Amino acid sequence: MDIPKVIREMALQARQAARALGSLSRGVKDQVLLRMAALLEARRAELQAANARDVEKARAEGHPAAFLDRLTLSDKVMAAMVQGLREVAALPDPVGEVVKMWRRPNGLWVGRMRIPLGVIGFIYESRPNVTVDAAALCLKSGNAIILKGGKEALHSNLALARLMQEVLEEYRLPPAAVQVIPSVAREATLELLRQDELVDLIIPRGGEGLIRFVAEHSRIPVLKHYKGVCHIFVDASADLDLAESVCFNAKVQRPGVCNAMETMLVHEGIAPEFLPRMHRRFREAGVELRGCPRTCELDPQVKPATEADWGCEFLDLILAVKVVPDLDAALEHIARYSSNHTEAILTRDYDNAQRFLREVDSSVVLVNASTRFNDGGELGLGAEIGISTSKLHAFGPMSLEELTTTKFIVYGHGQVRT
Amino acid sequence: MDIPKVIREMALQARQAARALGSLSRGVKDQVLLRMAALLEARRAELQAANARDVEKARAEGHPAAFLDRLTLSDKVMAAMVQGLREVAALPDPVGEVVKMWRRPNGLWVGRMRIPLGVIGFIYESRPNVTVDAAALCLKSGNAIILKGGKEALHSNLALARLMQEVLEEYRLPPAAVQVIPSVAREATLELLRQDELVDLIIPRGGEGLIRFVAEHSRIPVLKHYKGVCHIFVDASADLDLAESVCFNAKVQRPGVCNAMETMLVHEGIAPEFLPRMHRRFREAGVELRGCPRTCELDPQVKPATEADWGCEFLDLILAVKVVPDLDAALEHIARYSSNHTEAILTRDYDNAQRFLREVDSSVVLVNASTRFNDGGELGLGAEIGISTSKLHAFGPMSLEELTTTKFIVYGHGQVRT
Repeated sequence: MDIPKVIREMALQARQAARALGSLSRGVKDQVLLRMAALLEARRAELQAANARDVEKARAEGHPAAFLDRLTLSDKVMAAMVQGLREVAALPDPVGEVVKMWRRPNGLWVGRMRIPLGVIGFIYESRPNVTVDAAALCLKSGNAIILKGGKEALHSNLALARLMQEVLEEYRLPPAAVQVIPSVAREATLELLRQDELVDLIIPRGGEGLIRFVAEHSRIPVLKHYKGVCHIFVDASADLDLAESVCFNAKVQRPGVCNAMETMLVHEGIAPEFLPRMHRRFREAGVELRGCPRTCELDPQVKPATEADWGCEFLDLILAVKVVPDLDAALEHIARYSSNHTEAILTRDYDNAQRFLREVDSSVVLVNASTRFNDGGELGLGAEIGISTSKLHAFGPMSLEELTTTKFIVYGHGQVRT
Repeated sequence: MDIPKVIREMALQARQAARALGSLSRGVKDQVLLRMAALLEARRAELQAANARDVEKARAEGHPAAFLDRLTLSDKVMAAMVQGLREVAALPDPVGEVVKMWRRPNGLWVGRMRIPLGVIGFIYESRPNVTVDAAALCLKSGNAIILKGGKEALHSNLALARLMQEVLEEYRLPPAAVQVIPSVAREATLELLRQDELVDLIIPRGGEGLIRFVAEHSRIPVLKHYKGVCHIFVDASADLDLAESVCFNAKVQRPGVCNAMETMLVHEGIAPEFLPRMHRRFREAGVELRGCPRTCELDPQVKPATEADWGCEFLDLILAVKVVPDLDAALEHIARYSSNHTEAILTRDYDNAQRFLREVDSSVVLVNASTRFNDGGELGLGAEIGISTSKLHAFGPMSLEELTTTKFIVYGHGQVRT
């Protein structure tokens, strides 16, 4: 395969497809999504057969169980994909929305209209269900998508893309609106990252290594999601029952994800009362605690934390615990160690709540709620295509709106500039 | 000078300054801007003396008159800078605005709050007035700025930065909020472009060469403004008096700027009537016309256009003219040759106006008004720091809002995820 030629051709086709997608009405887009959902259900066996080839090969290669699990299109995963398509169809269409309109002294009416970004390159690991989720969000927001999934999922991804392309053709839409790169070579990824004249945005999804690789080699803007080192600050005035419930949820409910709590900061005024009861709950759930000297003093069962534990994304049942003298010290610690992902304060103090919301420089900042709510669905945006931890274009969970931009539209009646 | 060390230190200081700027109230920021304006007036002679050194050197080096003109801080330019500071002080503060707030089924209140981007690197040519304009916009939007101007303006820029830093110190704010790189070496620019851990955004302003250089070497996101190849389509139903006035304004009022018209597309139905009268006006103003075969047929004085004339940014009293059979052909021509900057339709047809607004993929799309309105001030945004012709983060003129992003704020009362 002549990779540069193939990728260049795919990008050109995507560019053309994007032009057609940009002016589709919501009705057509929703019909296409619902038809894809129906076809996914009707052809489940066929898709699972393609997937089985990938899974068998990966198993033979000795991939661990968790990897095979993510790779497998089980009945449950298939049903979730179908459900996902239906949910995206039910979301409002961001394209064409005029977000604001105002009148100028010379009588011009000026507005900002949402439009698609154009062509999106999506680079991810071996999770074939993501293929359909990402394509649905791009389609609904009027963008063409070029997908490069993990090499172990190639057959699954190609089968899913073929099915989606069939539906596009059925509706006389360009099949290049959804394309899977038919190569597992790293060179194909690199070539995609060079198409800055044709591709508008790259979204990588996966581990830190993948994201750094993409960011390093891309000539196209990249929306990055590095890591989630989420903090909760339990203030002196916190309701301790609420704090126990929220901190437990943030650490234990699903420790392997980016919005789980990694460091708990506790005001010294309540630490003697709060830490023992909180630690008991954590220990019952198998959480390993690593504490600052004061924490270890208050609870000698806690292992001393090392410098490397602050700012560490454990992604596991491990928690760093630090006692701080006041809100300022908590803010200082967060400014130094957080990954700008998600932080929460638990407090009954009005001023501290407002200051925390205002001053913490993270994509989602919460008062009296679990960090686990940093999620497009949970915040009410609908399905998410990723979470951005850098500020340009989008900061936080990205859904349909974040896959658009705005242009200015101007209604005049002959105005000229003097 | 150890350039990498100096630039790194400046970026670190800017980062710290940004943290302090982010939580300033509007009152303080406006006082600082107004004090800068007052000091610019009071110390005009001193600043003009620093500027005179730059101008004399540039003159001795043989720079052309237009260059020296842009470099000179004349009384008029000084007055405009003072006025600019006062106008930015009068603009609303974007920081802290909650642009939307909604309630979730579980009772969480979720909002999006505007926050500064952080640290902005601004790279531009030898126009020292831009130093103050850009610093004012960054300060008002809570961002720290690192400025790298053209080498011929170094003394002027350093003097202006010193004055602004004096005011910052007077208000006990970090002077590193506004820094001018004290080196003219290209290496200093390159080093700035490598500070992706500390600098959030690069805005280059100047000719295409400068912008391409920056885009090519930056590891930081860049908001690009390549060129303005602006089109006006005069539809069959256009009011010919209005069309004459708007097209004349768009080409002649200031031909050297990015929002001037470069190609006029004329519906064949009105070309025989419109072209002769329009061309007469253009010729009286000294505009050179280059036409398609049909244009030359209708007006034999027009010189035939070559392929290079379509999509050319003349920045001069030169205009390409093409007769097209219909709106579709006009849209096709624009999709092929435009630079996504500004396009207008002149029409009395409702459907054609709406289709043009919807389908043209440019940052500003107008009906019955001059392309010259693509400007932050003219569209009502206030002063602009540039015009983005790529879609990510901002598309079109960029003012205070475009120097911010939003974070999610969440008010809860103990919600956990289940």
